[in-house]
Amino acid sequence: NHIIICGYGRNGTQAARKLLAYNKAFVVIEKDKELIDRFTDDDMHFIHGNANEDETLIQAGVNRASTLICALPNDADNLFVVLSARQLNKNLCIISRASQETSYKKLKLAGADNVILPDKIGGDHMASLVVVPDLIEFIDNLSIVGKSNINIEEIEVEKLYNVSTVKTIKDLDLRQKTGCNVIGFKDGEGDYVVNPEAETRLVPNSKIIVLGRPEQIQKLNTVYNID
Amino acid sequence: NHIIICGYGRNGTQAARKLLAYNKAFVVIEKDKELIDRFTDDDMHFIHGNANEDETLIQAGVNRASTLICALPNDADNLFVVLSARQLNKNLCIISRASQETSYKKLKLAGADNVILPDKIGGDHMASLVVVPDLIEFIDNLSIVGKSNINIEEIEVEKLYNVSTVKTIKDLDLRQKTGCNVIGFKDGEGDYVVNPEAETRLVPNSKIIVLGRPEQIQKLNTVYNID
Ligand SMILES: [Ca+2]
Ligand SMILES: [Ca+2]
Repeated sequence: NHIIICGYGRNGTQAARKLLAYNKAFVVIEKDKELIDRFTDDDMHFIHGNANEDETLIQAGVNRASTLICALPNDADNLFVVLSARQLNKNLCIISRASQETSYKKLKLAGADNVILPDKIGGDHMASLVVVPDLIEFIDNLSIVGKSNINIEEIEVEKLYNVSTVKTIKDLDLRQKTGCNVIGFKDGEGDYVVNPEAETRLVPNSKIIVLGRPEQIQKLNTVYNID
Repeated sequence: NHIIICGYGRNGTQAARKLLAYNKAFVVIEKDKELIDRFTDDDMHFIHGNANEDETLIQAGVNRASTLICALPNDADNLFVVLSARQLNKNLCIISRASQETSYKKLKLAGADNVILPDKIGGDHMASLVVVPDLIEFIDNLSIVGKSNINIEEIEVEKLYNVSTVKTIKDLDLRQKTGCNVIGFKDGEGDYVVNPEAETRLVPNSKIIVLGRPEQIQKLNTVYNID
């Protein structure tokens, strides 16, 4: 149930750093032995090899892994790894980077669940800094992953109340009890509502997205005994 | 008061696309003539030349520009352009991309106001997809820039009421009038509050960040006559 990262370049390094911060178990496949020797320690586990060889993926435990992050610099290599990994494990969640926009569809076809285009995200970000600078500053300062100082969180409704009698957002009244603000709702079918109405019914298998200052999020987790 | 984009690679292209969508005037400096011939049209204005020559920057109107987006593939080139542009125009807002994390500080020292690391953002994004997938999907689907279907907006309080008598968020009651949800506040000194209290005083020169479904944001803009 671990995560495999292919490639310890700039993308892979940052992904590893985040996963470490969140205490997730992962292993990194990297072909550069020097890089491995430099960064191996108690927290970082490497496999020396080429991710586009099936044996290397198997050695990394692709059959029992939950997720594969494909962060190689070359789109053709990522495509090869995505296709191989998909063949080896049908249930794997596969996330790949891509340099070229034209690779997006190909990687999806090969079996990737998510494709991330860093240069596209970066270009968007630069333009948004021109058009809506305060908004970007606000969003960039929201903390969404980490152990403390979180501003935004997704919560399964089952953690908030006994769903055998369905309640609404208004019934739950998180604002009054914790200060938190419900900004999103995802129903059991996976459809999202931004800024849901107070009358929204919190049916089983749905989730809410809450926003708050760190102390409010903390209070919510304490009040509802969420880990 | 226009924007200059240096480099029409993947980053620069995406930045240009966003600025076009937002009807912002800009010019692109690109040294590859073939690329220019392929993409020049009524909307796209190019200057053929090397951004690290002062004459090219001057030709692009650096002295009267509001913003320069430096999107060259090489960090040393970006550093050179940032430093040159800063010398030519003290008031310019300079946004640069960087590949290496170690370039961040150098670009800031050279005069960049914002430095964007696409690979870092991309790596973060991939890890966050593992840790908080629904949250990332929610945020990715929020529309923050564009003409229609916007979910989130920053608004100067002066556009909402006559600030000669200061009102609070509660007094304004945007939720009742438009359905919009106030999720952030930026005071006159530039400090942000996430999920501000209803009692927050909307002093002159402050801004609020609102979240809503597109029809709610539209209603807010209509009710308050915001363009
Ligand atoms: Ca990498
Ligand atoms: Ca570029």
